[in-house]
Amino acid sequence: MMHLRTHPGLKSVLIISPFVLVMAALLFSHCAGPDDGEEALTGLQEKALAFTAPLPEDAFEDGMERCEERIELGKMLFFEPRLSKSGLISCNTCHNMSTFGVDQLPVSIGHMWQKGPRNAPTVLNAALHNSQFWDGREPDVESQAIMPILDELEMAATEEHVLAVLGSMPEYVDRFERVFADEEDPMVYENVGVALGAFERILLTPYSPFDNFLRGDADALSDKEKQGLQVFMDVGCQSCHGGAALGGGAFAVFETPAERESGESDLGRFDITGNELHRHSFKVPSLLNIAQTYPYLHDGSVWSLGETVDIVARDMLNEELTEEQNEQIVAFLKALTGEIPAYALEKPILPESTPETPRPGFD
Amino acid sequence: MMHLRTHPGLKSVLIISPFVLVMAALLFSHCAGPDDGEEALTGLQEKALAFTAPLPEDAFEDGMERCEERIELGKMLFFEPRLSKSGLISCNTCHNMSTFGVDQLPVSIGHMWQKGPRNAPTVLNAALHNSQFWDGREPDVESQAIMPILDELEMAATEEHVLAVLGSMPEYVDRFERVFADEEDPMVYENVGVALGAFERILLTPYSPFDNFLRGDADALSDKEKQGLQVFMDVGCQSCHGGAALGGGAFAVFETPAERESGESDLGRFDITGNELHRHSFKVPSLLNIAQTYPYLHDGSVWSLGETVDIVARDMLNEELTEEQNEQIVAFLKALTGEIPAYALEKPILPESTPETPRPGFD
Repeated sequence: MMHLRTHPGLKSVLIISPFVLVMAALLFSHCAGPDDGEEALTGLQEKALAFTAPLPEDAFEDGMERCEERIELGKMLFFEPRLSKSGLISCNTCHNMSTFGVDQLPVSIGHMWQKGPRNAPTVLNAALHNSQFWDGREPDVESQAIMPILDELEMAATEEHVLAVLGSMPEYVDRFERVFADEEDPMVYENVGVALGAFERILLTPYSPFDNFLRGDADALSDKEKQGLQVFMDVGCQSCHGGAALGGGAFAVFETPAERESGESDLGRFDITGNELHRHSFKVPSLLNIAQTYPYLHDGSVWSLGETVDIVARDMLNEELTEEQNEQIVAFLKALTGEIPAYALEKPILPESTPETPRPGFD
Repeated sequence: MMHLRTHPGLKSVLIISPFVLVMAALLFSHCAGPDDGEEALTGLQEKALAFTAPLPEDAFEDGMERCEERIELGKMLFFEPRLSKSGLISCNTCHNMSTFGVDQLPVSIGHMWQKGPRNAPTVLNAALHNSQFWDGREPDVESQAIMPILDELEMAATEEHVLAVLGSMPEYVDRFERVFADEEDPMVYENVGVALGAFERILLTPYSPFDNFLRGDADALSDKEKQGLQVFMDVGCQSCHGGAALGGGAFAVFETPAERESGESDLGRFDITGNELHRHSFKVPSLLNIAQTYPYLHDGSVWSLGETVDIVARDMLNEELTEEQNEQIVAFLKALTGEIPAYALEKPILPESTPETPRPGFD
């Protein structure tokens, strides 16, 4: 039976989160084996299911059924520029839904045109990661989402500003009261993150060719993509890029070629933990929608996906890929582009400011 | 018959565009008179129809039927940050659909955090204006739309940059070839404006309470809103704020209180024409969705709608409004908020960059 064969595989991947196991269990219930008269999985599908799992198909419907109002509020906040000091920058500025949850810039541009220190990761599927930010300093999307609002390089607001903005508009006050009805003080800064996190949790992108392949359609990948998947596994990419998000779990010590050349390398997780073992250590990025979330690496210094594959294979796995292998892996990576929920692309109409709404600050 | 009574009224308003007359003619065909057994228009409705007209209800459907591909391309371009030099700023940055086609800032923030000289007008219903920009220097939305892309304070691009960006992506090349199939060179800079203009032409916002009132529903306005409409007409606001957009036609000499105080007043249309009569002359803004398109006046110096009404009544009409009159007019103005087409709020998924796509420039 399939789960007997895949289960040990799943366990052997260090970064598997409990979520993946739950998803895998769900998967097995309707991805029937040959004894049910359905088509057997191919060997390649089974090998892939040993290190990853299809994305849940019902995350959106399930989320909306269980907490639609919270998600709706989170979406409003995601698109709300008045959370920023300037009134210009929203989460969507750097995590643009039209470009797969990123800004496609090396590093983001924030308040007063300041540059951030690292490439902005996509919000798509971020809820599947074991931790948030390149240095993993926040545990989940709820705690992550409220940090850039306060970062003086990004949205440059204060908690007081955010609560004054939201508290000035009856629609937001009503929504917080409804969504956090059981709390004594519904409008606290933490709840901004709870709502944003609820929205982020529905930002999964199933139905990529690879996702369909994992779900049972052996023809969802082309021959070249399958060869790419095989090379991906042969050289060992999945040892870090495993789990449902193909990354987002483990940490790895990594310097980009640009950093090595300049002699100025980001200290990564060391800045958070002070642990020498974490010097230049970064969260392994997810590979889902990787073809759209360029430029690559934590400093956004490489624009080419093929070049990135060569760099990472060489530096992390000590593998010199042939040109053919590189092209095959790139073909496989392009088969990781899934579907953004239509709901996330529908911009909300934001409530009207009132005389009490803080005015934008440009400096 | 209604059209006999309203027609002279329409002619007496100087800024009526041919479009309004066409719309009015269409209106009369299905807004039947009492002899058809339908309810007669009230006197207040008839007076209002003498200086304005309901917005066409079928602009969206009609546009999509006649040129869906052009509108679709225009929407992509509207949300396309790669048209800007930085790769960060799109039309939607300053004309945010979530906030009624404006940024709700005094003046816009553009490339390198530079401030624009004037408040950004809304793109909603802009296609109904007789000219574009505060100084009316462009005749239509097609010619207007391509200017901010090149403005070094705004998107800071060049025509070459824009054509290189669009020409680098097969999806855009295909779309331009389909939309401009009868042209020898479909991808020319002017056609960026043609597509953007097609999208803007569906950005009308019918079904405000006042729009419904004009279309025949006498109960669509509350008593206070009706009193406001009466005061609006009594003091003569409609002499400039007439036409379907309640503005967007005439020009008026105007200094804001902030300008008078600073002694530095925008020369307005004079800078374009050199005509002394145009010194400090500005296009009269549309009042549609005015409650959402704060802050007000060409320098965005006034946040309160009530204060703006007092300033304009005093400076343009030499009228000192009572507090009651002011509140009534404000109530009427709040009844001018219509419905943004859902289509315009649905963000497009943008095509993937290629190695040929120009890289973002941050300075």
